[in-house]
Amino acid sequence: MEDKRMAYKNDEDGFIHVPIRVRYADTDRMGIVYYGNYPLYFEIGRSEYMRQKGCAYREVEERGHYLVVVRMEVKYYNPAFYDDELIVRTRISEWKSRGLTFQYRIFRDGEIIVEGKTMHICTNTDKKPTVIPKYLTDALKDEG
Amino acid sequence: MEDKRMAYKNDEDGFIHVPIRVRYADTDRMGIVYYGNYPLYFEIGRSEYMRQKGCAYREVEERGHYLVVVRMEVKYYNPAFYDDELIVRTRISEWKSRGLTFQYRIFRDGEIIVEGKTMHICTNTDKKPTVIPKYLTDALKDEG
Amino acid sequence: MEDKRMAYKNDEDGFIHVPIRVRYADTDRMGIVYYGNYPLYFEIGRSEYMRQKGCAYREVEERGHYLVVVRMEVKYYNPAFYDDELIVRTRISEWKSRGLTFQYRIFRDGEIIVEGKTMHICTNTDKKPTVIPKYLTDALKDEG
Amino acid sequence: MEDKRMAYKNDEDGFIHVPIRVRYADTDRMGIVYYGNYPLYFEIGRSEYMRQKGCAYREVEERGHYLVVVRMEVKYYNPAFYDDELIVRTRISEWKSRGLTFQYRIFRDGEIIVEGKTMHICTNTDKKPTVIPKYLTDALKDEG
Repeated sequence: MEDKRMAYKNDEDGFIHVPIRVRYADTDRMGIVYYGNYPLYFEIGRSEYMRQKGCAYREVEERGHYLVVVRMEVKYYNPAFYDDELIVRTRISEWKSRGLTFQYRIFRDGEIIVEGKTMHICTNTDKKPTVIPKYLTDALKDEG
Repeated sequence: MEDKRMAYKNDEDGFIHVPIRVRYADTDRMGIVYYGNYPLYFEIGRSEYMRQKGCAYREVEERGHYLVVVRMEVKYYNPAFYDDELIVRTRISEWKSRGLTFQYRIFRDGEIIVEGKTMHICTNTDKKPTVIPKYLTDALKDEG
Repeated sequence: MEDKRMAYKNDEDGFIHVPIRVRYADTDRMGIVYYGNYPLYFEIGRSEYMRQKGCAYREVEERGHYLVVVRMEVKYYNPAFYDDELIVRTRISEWKSRGLTFQYRIFRDGEIIVEGKTMHICTNTDKKPTVIPKYLTDALKDEG
Repeated sequence: MEDKRMAYKNDEDGFIHVPIRVRYADTDRMGIVYYGNYPLYFEIGRSEYMRQKGCAYREVEERGHYLVVVRMEVKYYNPAFYDDELIVRTRISEWKSRGLTFQYRIFRDGEIIVEGKTMHICTNTDKKPTVIPKYLTDALKDEG
């Protein structure tokens, strides 16, 4: 898998690029990706962003921390279709002591499809908000 | 079905109340409803709102009009769990000539779980934005 | 909710009937319910069957038992469309000491859409197969 | 994309291997992949199988043919977890004049997770069963 991960592009604006293929299941009877499926695409972007930075979300949970979604915003610009190859560009756009914001831009051949944000707070295993642990900020703030 | 539809409550703030049951499929490994499933709950609220007002969305599409989602906002307050019975309260919070905004508040036993909005534009079969047709405003603006 | 539960019909063949409404999200670009969504409809049927019998699946898990799916068969006869009201008919078709089989028949206005089976084994909290506990057989084998 | 496609392994039994990553959304509160999500994994396997053989399903539909699912069988051997990298192995196990059967075996590190089949009939744009067109058998029966 190392090779594939390395292939993810980290552009000059700090976005990491992850390709996804639109599945038949993702479409609705209008023939386009159902509006409620983009949060799943955001998750793929976020998940691969963290893996790329050396801090896979699975490990974060194993260490007893959760990044709970408290808010989401989505703007829909253009429809995506079955079998399209989309690029999900993800970066962290805002840091707070107990939370952070992921920003997503989904493109098809350079054309913007959807843009969004998810705001997260960090909690411990008791689901209490907590300061983001140092290992997480160290990894995610890395310029790498 | 008439009886069940009639059971939907239309409260003093104009929200129509629709009960939904959380399915096992809706939960994730954190044991709560996955954040990306709430847009589907919004769809149920919106769909039953329109049916209740006498203008089911299926008929709108059959008449050649679409309410395309162009923006969504979601605030997550409390988690929902498997088998919970939630109430989706839906109303139209804003009208424009070519669009409208649905507002949703999802509750469990009076406790707020999630709140959100979806902004829609009206299009014709060519996917061109169009003025919301009179039959639709007549139905949806009805105080009934 | 009591009233609505009571409305579920328990027909002469032992099937309990649960109505479901096809959501936009359930459809694909062929304009019909995506084949992979029927297992979710089966879950709704199974879940309401157990609730109706006085033994909601949530409680089964709270008591430390799981009905894990080990096999599924689905036959697709006719397509279902957006906004269709379907009836999921569910019954238990086979009992073994450590497992049972649910059978489903999904109809629209008397026309068969999909038929299926899910075979389950009973496990404890260690995920070890176990004899189905008496409280569960008592409830589910009830003729009520 | 060419490079990545080429990476798909075509083993001695004629299975094409496609890697998929389990998403958070795919899990349920038992902490494992929800049983109803495997048909989506099958779709990914089937879709990449056809693309690999030079006959992407999108193109089949554009040429006016559909491979409609009429039957599915699934056997669940072991659970899969969040972030697991699974390999979906797909091949065509049976040909008939008007239909074909895809067979799937999903593995994690050589351990079988799920096995399944989907039986399809070929239809034209009127949804009438039809003989599988020559371009499709030529491509899919290719040993390549």
